[in-house]
Amino acid sequence: MRVVSSVCELRSALSSSPVLVPTMGALHAGHLDLVQRARSSAGPKGQVAVSIFVNPIQFDRPGDLQAYPRTLESDLEKCRAAGVDLVFTPSADSMYFPDRSVTVMESSLSATLCGATRPGHFDGVCTVVLKLFHQFQPSAAVFGEKDYQQLAIIRRMVRDLDVPVEIIAAPTVREIDGLAMSSRNARLSETQRADAPRIRRALLAAAETTEPTLLLATARAAIESPLNRIDYLELVDAETLLPASDRSRPTLLATAVFYGEVRLIDNLLLPALG
Amino acid sequence: MRVVSSVCELRSALSSSPVLVPTMGALHAGHLDLVQRARSSAGPKGQVAVSIFVNPIQFDRPGDLQAYPRTLESDLEKCRAAGVDLVFTPSADSMYFPDRSVTVMESSLSATLCGATRPGHFDGVCTVVLKLFHQFQPSAAVFGEKDYQQLAIIRRMVRDLDVPVEIIAAPTVREIDGLAMSSRNARLSETQRADAPRIRRALLAAAETTEPTLLLATARAAIESPLNRIDYLELVDAETLLPASDRSRPTLLATAVFYGEVRLIDNLLLPALG
Repeated sequence: MRVVSSVCELRSALSSSPVLVPTMGALHAGHLDLVQRARSSAGPKGQVAVSIFVNPIQFDRPGDLQAYPRTLESDLEKCRAAGVDLVFTPSADSMYFPDRSVTVMESSLSATLCGATRPGHFDGVCTVVLKLFHQFQPSAAVFGEKDYQQLAIIRRMVRDLDVPVEIIAAPTVREIDGLAMSSRNARLSETQRADAPRIRRALLAAAETTEPTLLLATARAAIESPLNRIDYLELVDAETLLPASDRSRPTLLATAVFYGEVRLIDNLLLPALG
Repeated sequence: MRVVSSVCELRSALSSSPVLVPTMGALHAGHLDLVQRARSSAGPKGQVAVSIFVNPIQFDRPGDLQAYPRTLESDLEKCRAAGVDLVFTPSADSMYFPDRSVTVMESSLSATLCGATRPGHFDGVCTVVLKLFHQFQPSAAVFGEKDYQQLAIIRRMVRDLDVPVEIIAAPTVREIDGLAMSSRNARLSETQRADAPRIRRALLAAAETTEPTLLLATARAAIESPLNRIDYLELVDAETLLPASDRSRPTLLATAVFYGEVRLIDNLLLPALG
């Protein structure tokens, strides 16, 4: 496995179009599942590449950027064990010029959910992902469905800018108690961690309800605990991400929940009701 | 020479990374000079590709878009004679989805000159050029220095987004009386056409002056005529495009001048004075 930190080294280490797994590090089993999907797509002889970069321009809260877990040595170990061929670990200084002035903006899908409460977040995501696509020129890239809105926005970027990269979606990987795997879980206290699986249980329980307002009220009641604070809880059209007034089309039940300073997200795709 | 109008046909017509000349058609000798430079870069066996697309999202005035000259048959003839291998003529419908929501934005270099008077223009330019880059995956692309600000912004986009395309700049090609070649020249009346070379003469005359305020006053007096109206006339730093207060660094003397509804631009790069 090669580990490179400059675009120049990266380009010389790439033998052909790899399959890319963009990450911010602090790798867990969810990331390793993305790696396995990348391997399936690349084939045994193709290159699987992982980028590890905590992207400063997608953080709206400086404290969140500061506190984001950084575990490079163990990340590299996990990548090696998972059969990754190439890891790219650029510095923020090498990714962004002090006078950088070009940003990729998405103006529709990013207006709701995480976009509404994290201004500039998805512009930062789009910009870094497009940079990585240009740096790696991958044939495909793998993203997790846990970040459903991010996945939808990246698909939109690829469509609208004709980016020649196939986007592969991977289902959310969960802890045994249902909590969606996330690098941020490591920042939860023991009692917070014990409380957090209620998020997933609440989404599943609410999914039985047909009427959106009642569905959201059911979910809200089941999520709330003395340990958390709901950032948002919404039922949106699964394609446009606009609020859904009924369930005649596929919808997404999505939430972001704060435990102290730690913000967790999860979602559930609901089929159209006939 | 192959002529294709869909991205799918385009991708199958590309044998390797071409050298691209993006145009809006109404081709003149300036464009054909860009084609010759593309040929030099591609080599005799490389592919030279020309895109012809009047990009609606870079026009700030609907009348200008409507009136922009469209001369496809003669354009194709000129491309054929110039040895172009591939011409791409997409429709606006095939380039832009009705619900498109992703835009490339440049926030620094586009604040002055044409950017100040044409809101959204350079975002439209960046977006379409990046789409073309993704569609063609060229090794290089050629742009004229007549559109100096556009060239600077595209270079910035390539730098900030790590776009793997070499940008080749081509000096402005001029009519025998000094008027910068432009597709818009065809829309000038005979008297306007006879008056327009004063723009170039004014820039050259003013270049002798050291002090910026005096330099601009000299240029303004020499450009103005009863037939025209100056949109802007500025002396800016050649790198940042911010107003220059002296000539200690290389500067750009740039102007946009309306003849009736027709807007002409020209510029002159001035060396730093020691």
